[in-house]
Amino acid sequence: MGALKTALFKRVAVIGLGLIGSSLTRAIAAEGLADEVVGFDASPEVRRLAAALPDFGASIADSLESVLDGADLVIMAVPVGAMEGLAALVAPQLKAGAILSDVGSVKGRIIEAVVPLLPEGVYFVPGHPVAGTEFSGPEAGFASLFAGRWCIITPVEGTPSEVVARVVQFWERLGSSVEEMSAEHHDIVLAITSHIPHLIAYNIVGTAADLEEVTSSEVIKYSAGGFRDFTRIAASDPVMWRDVFMNNKEAVLEMLGRFTEDLTQLQRHIRRGDEQALEDLFTRTRAIRRSIVEAGQETEKPDFGR
Amino acid sequence: MGALKTALFKRVAVIGLGLIGSSLTRAIAAEGLADEVVGFDASPEVRRLAAALPDFGASIADSLESVLDGADLVIMAVPVGAMEGLAALVAPQLKAGAILSDVGSVKGRIIEAVVPLLPEGVYFVPGHPVAGTEFSGPEAGFASLFAGRWCIITPVEGTPSEVVARVVQFWERLGSSVEEMSAEHHDIVLAITSHIPHLIAYNIVGTAADLEEVTSSEVIKYSAGGFRDFTRIAASDPVMWRDVFMNNKEAVLEMLGRFTEDLTQLQRHIRRGDEQALEDLFTRTRAIRRSIVEAGQETEKPDFGR
Repeated sequence: MGALKTALFKRVAVIGLGLIGSSLTRAIAAEGLADEVVGFDASPEVRRLAAALPDFGASIADSLESVLDGADLVIMAVPVGAMEGLAALVAPQLKAGAILSDVGSVKGRIIEAVVPLLPEGVYFVPGHPVAGTEFSGPEAGFASLFAGRWCIITPVEGTPSEVVARVVQFWERLGSSVEEMSAEHHDIVLAITSHIPHLIAYNIVGTAADLEEVTSSEVIKYSAGGFRDFTRIAASDPVMWRDVFMNNKEAVLEMLGRFTEDLTQLQRHIRRGDEQALEDLFTRTRAIRRSIVEAGQETEKPDFGR
Repeated sequence: MGALKTALFKRVAVIGLGLIGSSLTRAIAAEGLADEVVGFDASPEVRRLAAALPDFGASIADSLESVLDGADLVIMAVPVGAMEGLAALVAPQLKAGAILSDVGSVKGRIIEAVVPLLPEGVYFVPGHPVAGTEFSGPEAGFASLFAGRWCIITPVEGTPSEVVARVVQFWERLGSSVEEMSAEHHDIVLAITSHIPHLIAYNIVGTAADLEEVTSSEVIKYSAGGFRDFTRIAASDPVMWRDVFMNNKEAVLEMLGRFTEDLTQLQRHIRRGDEQALEDLFTRTRAIRRSIVEAGQETEKPDFGR
């Protein structure tokens, strides 16, 4: 005898049916957030796969025009590099009062690209659910992906507060906590909490793969010593991540510079045998994990519960 | 109606009752590998804690002398920096025919330190189980820690093959697969599969903690974007890891140099907008994770199954 699930929107269109898009369709359907949910993807193969999935939550349109028809919320869930091109096709077809949104991992460049394309009476409310797995495609999504996670909204200047509030409510109904901040601050925060970790993981997996003295098979066999933890995020979608780095260049290079300065200092500590300096750092970092577990953003099971 | 569990040793002494030592006591007892298992730790508090744990698997001695009395296998499970001092106390008390072993994450320096101390007829068979969690202490260990993992043995020149074989069999009975290699090769392999990953993780957690523009609470809140994966191994035992870096300096600095060269190249790709180079690397690294899962060294569940 659950609470009546009120629809927040008449028709939600999700464009891009990868991990995030296909989690959105499932979650919106599960929560009864819209009278109708409809999905579209540029790839006919993805559309075919999605249409064949029993729990997908949305009907699949066969054109951009038909997915947008009558939509009052349109969510772009495509790689950041494709966002501008998509918005150029989508924006002219939106009716006044429709809300355009997204889920991209960078916000500044997307706002610069999309806002000039909007017709009168159509608002763009940029969003970023800080959630994901290393898998891709319409079969990878699941309804609970956003539950217990944070969603960051970076409202565009001049957007009526009740429009922003509708999008905030949408994400809260999907189980997320919502935080609002400027696009610039978002891009710096995500540079350190997400983009640089991914860059570092990609780098170390690449470095290990290129060694002459240690074979790939040895790297794989002995990966339980720490390496394997990095390989998960280094298995993340290559196109999505290529676009993230291309579109958050300034913040990423800034954070990378700091990372490298600190790493050089660690290198010096090792070379010079400064063991106390090492022990002090390692003691400090242990406390940070405890905080993440306590903030409900991580399991407390040893070894991630593996 | 299980197979009869034959004891391989009369009396196994485990010195150092942290995560690894306390997993050893539990595992040896569970497998019936010894007629007796006895443990010792330099800390009276640890000895007290261990003695109070119901499933610990070993009786707790109150002195080094009594734990070694009659032992035919002695395993040193202390931080690498404490190994030489411990071996100096232990070696003179060992009877001919006893086997000394260890579980340290570096092998070259330990062999250099320990072998000169051995009395006639006592052999040192260095070992390294590539296994662990981010937790510490006698309460953190568990019997299945070594199951399905690799254990690397780096035999000392001149050790009779039947002595090495007994230690290999010991680890196989604990559920590990065993590989033999030179200490030098071990130290290079582990530098890339374990030591550098830990160093990088420690570094990035430290860098994130020191930012002015992004608060610690923001880093924690948005950690599900990738950062949290690094915090687990950056929560590893500070003393153990301080000693690893102090005792595998050459291999660590070599691997760190390569990591940094590759990272600088990635930085250039980002600065110059070389998107194809990024996409190529990210595609390559995705395949490596698949190999680790297929080699049975990692779960295939999305997001580590969290």
